[in-house]
Amino acid sequence: MMDRALLLTRLLERAGTLFPAKAVVTRLRDGSLHRQTWSGTLERVRRLAGALTELGVRPGDRVATLAWNTSRHLELYFAVPAVGAVLHTLNVRLAPGQLTRIARHAGDRVLFADPEFAVAARDLRDAGVEGIVALDGPDDGGANPRGWLDYEALLAASTPVEAFPEWDENQAAVLCYTSGTTDDPKGVLYSHRALALHTLAIALPDGFGLGEADVIMPAVPMFHANAWGLPFAAAMTGATLVLPGARPDGAALVRLMASEGVTFAAGVPTVWLDVLEALRGGEARPGALRRIHSGGAPTPRALVDAYREEWGVEVVTGWGMTELSPVGMVCHPRGFMAGWDQERLAPVRTSQGTPLPFVEVRIVSEDGAEVPRDGETPGELQVRGPWVAGGYFAGEGEASGAPDGAFRDGWLRTGDVATLDAHGYVRLVDRLNDLIRSGGEWISSVRIENALMCHPAVAEAAVVAVVDVRWQERPLACIVLRTGAEPPSPEELLADLRAHVPSWWLPDRVVFLDALPHTATGKFDKKELRARFSPRPAT
Amino acid sequence: MMDRALLLTRLLERAGTLFPAKAVVTRLRDGSLHRQTWSGTLERVRRLAGALTELGVRPGDRVATLAWNTSRHLELYFAVPAVGAVLHTLNVRLAPGQLTRIARHAGDRVLFADPEFAVAARDLRDAGVEGIVALDGPDDGGANPRGWLDYEALLAASTPVEAFPEWDENQAAVLCYTSGTTDDPKGVLYSHRALALHTLAIALPDGFGLGEADVIMPAVPMFHANAWGLPFAAAMTGATLVLPGARPDGAALVRLMASEGVTFAAGVPTVWLDVLEALRGGEARPGALRRIHSGGAPTPRALVDAYREEWGVEVVTGWGMTELSPVGMVCHPRGFMAGWDQERLAPVRTSQGTPLPFVEVRIVSEDGAEVPRDGETPGELQVRGPWVAGGYFAGEGEASGAPDGAFRDGWLRTGDVATLDAHGYVRLVDRLNDLIRSGGEWISSVRIENALMCHPAVAEAAVVAVVDVRWQERPLACIVLRTGAEPPSPEELLADLRAHVPSWWLPDRVVFLDALPHTATGKFDKKELRARFSPRPAT
Repeated sequence: MMDRALLLTRLLERAGTLFPAKAVVTRLRDGSLHRQTWSGTLERVRRLAGALTELGVRPGDRVATLAWNTSRHLELYFAVPAVGAVLHTLNVRLAPGQLTRIARHAGDRVLFADPEFAVAARDLRDAGVEGIVALDGPDDGGANPRGWLDYEALLAASTPVEAFPEWDENQAAVLCYTSGTTDDPKGVLYSHRALALHTLAIALPDGFGLGEADVIMPAVPMFHANAWGLPFAAAMTGATLVLPGARPDGAALVRLMASEGVTFAAGVPTVWLDVLEALRGGEARPGALRRIHSGGAPTPRALVDAYREEWGVEVVTGWGMTELSPVGMVCHPRGFMAGWDQERLAPVRTSQGTPLPFVEVRIVSEDGAEVPRDGETPGELQVRGPWVAGGYFAGEGEASGAPDGAFRDGWLRTGDVATLDAHGYVRLVDRLNDLIRSGGEWISSVRIENALMCHPAVAEAAVVAVVDVRWQERPLACIVLRTGAEPPSPEELLADLRAHVPSWWLPDRVVFLDALPHTATGKFDKKELRARFSPRPAT
Repeated sequence: MMDRALLLTRLLERAGTLFPAKAVVTRLRDGSLHRQTWSGTLERVRRLAGALTELGVRPGDRVATLAWNTSRHLELYFAVPAVGAVLHTLNVRLAPGQLTRIARHAGDRVLFADPEFAVAARDLRDAGVEGIVALDGPDDGGANPRGWLDYEALLAASTPVEAFPEWDENQAAVLCYTSGTTDDPKGVLYSHRALALHTLAIALPDGFGLGEADVIMPAVPMFHANAWGLPFAAAMTGATLVLPGARPDGAALVRLMASEGVTFAAGVPTVWLDVLEALRGGEARPGALRRIHSGGAPTPRALVDAYREEWGVEVVTGWGMTELSPVGMVCHPRGFMAGWDQERLAPVRTSQGTPLPFVEVRIVSEDGAEVPRDGETPGELQVRGPWVAGGYFAGEGEASGAPDGAFRDGWLRTGDVATLDAHGYVRLVDRLNDLIRSGGEWISSVRIENALMCHPAVAEAAVVAVVDVRWQERPLACIVLRTGAEPPSPEELLADLRAHVPSWWLPDRVVFLDALPHTATGKFDKKELRARFSPRPAT
């Protein structure tokens, strides 16, 4: 067989030559839309690759971005790995101190940033970044911050790369840091090979099921683990790619999906809650929308039901981690469930599903043995596969290769607690850190949250452990009510809960908040909530 | 990223653990059905792998099969590569002389054969095969030929392999010979990596679109290039796999598809003509059947139309070669064609489609330049990619590594003439060599001509394809007699030919001419002859 490396440039060349007229659409800050074709994108990436080399970017160098989902960010997704360098997507929601710590650790040399992040970018220059290029959405005009290079001027002046260089497929292509909910963020270095295989797998019918006829919108930011692989999958399939630009709210996403005929969109549950509000508020239903993928956090059943019943849209759940490029599992009902009613399907639809091909899972109890496949016995979810990290990025000047505690015996220890049933469905019970230990028994905060969010008045619910003298820990529920909803009493909520969880799981306290704190990746910041209500000693 | 090899055993372990209760169904000779689960198949493959090692099969050894599509053949598909050996699927339709030549070239050490091939197997023993195992369909009973081992006895006595060994993913897994149209058959050695990537690609929505809910029936024999990858794809997706056993006719295939709820089936156009006849003859329509893939030869538009209009089944065409594992392209209408009527879609549906991801194509004119993407200008179709052969298998005791003419500059020269249009659709126009495609098999006109010209009365012989409703093409022989020779009867010529070529290669018609038309370079002008005897409609 030919020794052809699995390189990301192959995906873009494919899109540019076999699907040349298909579009990449970007929502600009003024709400207007920028359009370019895949063949135009290929030509611009050739120019950008030339410009990177002319800027002095060498193979292995880290090139950082601080940017929203735009066609320019997409061009960097392909051009930086094309020249053998590493695209480091910085999370724009991180605190300044975290950003500089991460950029220094990564050794970022050049930064491509939307000008709104000028303050953070200045800090990054102090952290060692040598040059900054003003990115922003295309055609947005406006002046660049002082001392920044202009993206379009760079492209206009560059000599396009005629033929993309060949690299070993294990060459690093992208670097992304974990959200660091428990400790310091850690870098995960994705190879061309890992991303190429991940792209094939997520596009499968039992993955996201993506093809040329799809119009794909990553609502998930491109600074999150490869936007879940969707920019690469869109190029591979020749699909139309719709990029929602800066700070889209629910209404903006609905309008964009409607105008562009989006068929598949992906984002965190919070985004789909916002979109649901916008739809209920009277925004026109996007007629072509078939499926949305809700990931990054457990998806409440109420959300799945609302989309199906009110809007005829299937919510596909799954499971991933930054360490998995990031998708590890996608959830679809099996063929034999075709006749099941929604009640019977509900626990399936809100499970994490089944691993993608070549992702291997095992669920291991505390004594190191695999748990029975009974859908009941919990254990730690461990994974391995060709797009699973084998270690964390060591950073500039640090010793590399020291195996982290998360990587042992060739398996990644995810820190998630899960069960596996006889049909191969994995169900997350909780994060190891989010489990509530009450009187020697485990309480799943996630299951209580899902049950609470079924209540029509509840918009969001987070359940955390508070220290208890008698039981060690007891659950406390933090509730955000839906706008305009008739507020229920705590007693009413608890009475409702009884139908869904054991009585000793019932939270001892229910507090109503105006908003829940979220992490930079949009998850409930339970660390903050715990600290607020019951400082727990570090484990 | 973890260094996890792409091995075929991962696909089977996946099927056995995540889809344990799903079935592999085999049609037996008496028409009854044998069923086993994927978890049962995994366990039997562990036993078979143990048995192979106990038989003395070592990594790199070739293990041949002469068998129909059965669960035992499937077990060999996984067990032989699992122990690092090479599965060599012999084409049961080859003439005895061809079989022994190929087996000797391959250096086959062990043969697993259905007992009906006892005569051929005896010849293979002379060609160096050390041991023969009687395979047949499961539970078919009957006595094994003398000196053959019994498959079930081997499994019963073996020590199952607990954990499949790890191999480099570039390790050879399967060997298949080309049909040897212009000259001797050539061996193509597939690696685990190539087959794994091929499996991912064909399962994509714009490939065959395969998922867990599918019931997949390869009507294409498992002795043809990996049965087009479907046994591996069924394992990867957890689909039900339906194997039609020995010599299924159209009616048997229809009944099998109906009883098992087949959703996707694949075979050569001749098979689909037979199935169409059976359906028209009153066999019950298989209610679950959504799509059939028709490949191995150009699919007539009438066939596509008949399935759609009469039976509501979509015929998906494509293009492949033994050298491509074998699928290179699959044809689907694009999203923008959604509103097109059937007349406008027809040329799209009968084109070869668009290359799968990571398959790169170029169409090159005689001067070596790529032709314009205008859908008009023909050139030679050349391909490259990670599941494209980079050379042919050299065989036992031969020098290896000498690059063949088909492989130059890293591209495989396919010998097919094609056009490429602005949307990336490839259309086969003609063939560089005048091969005759009969029922999905190749007939070499050159070899028949050479055999005919051995007859003392024959001065010149040209064999051309004439259109045939059932077989697409059949050979017609044009003979110029030697002056003064005693003219033989057509029957006498054909009887003579039988010694040299398979019986199904025998020309359907023999015509005597005073002279053959020649081209300027002295070659037979076959285009002229074809036009005279069977004007072929332009596609």
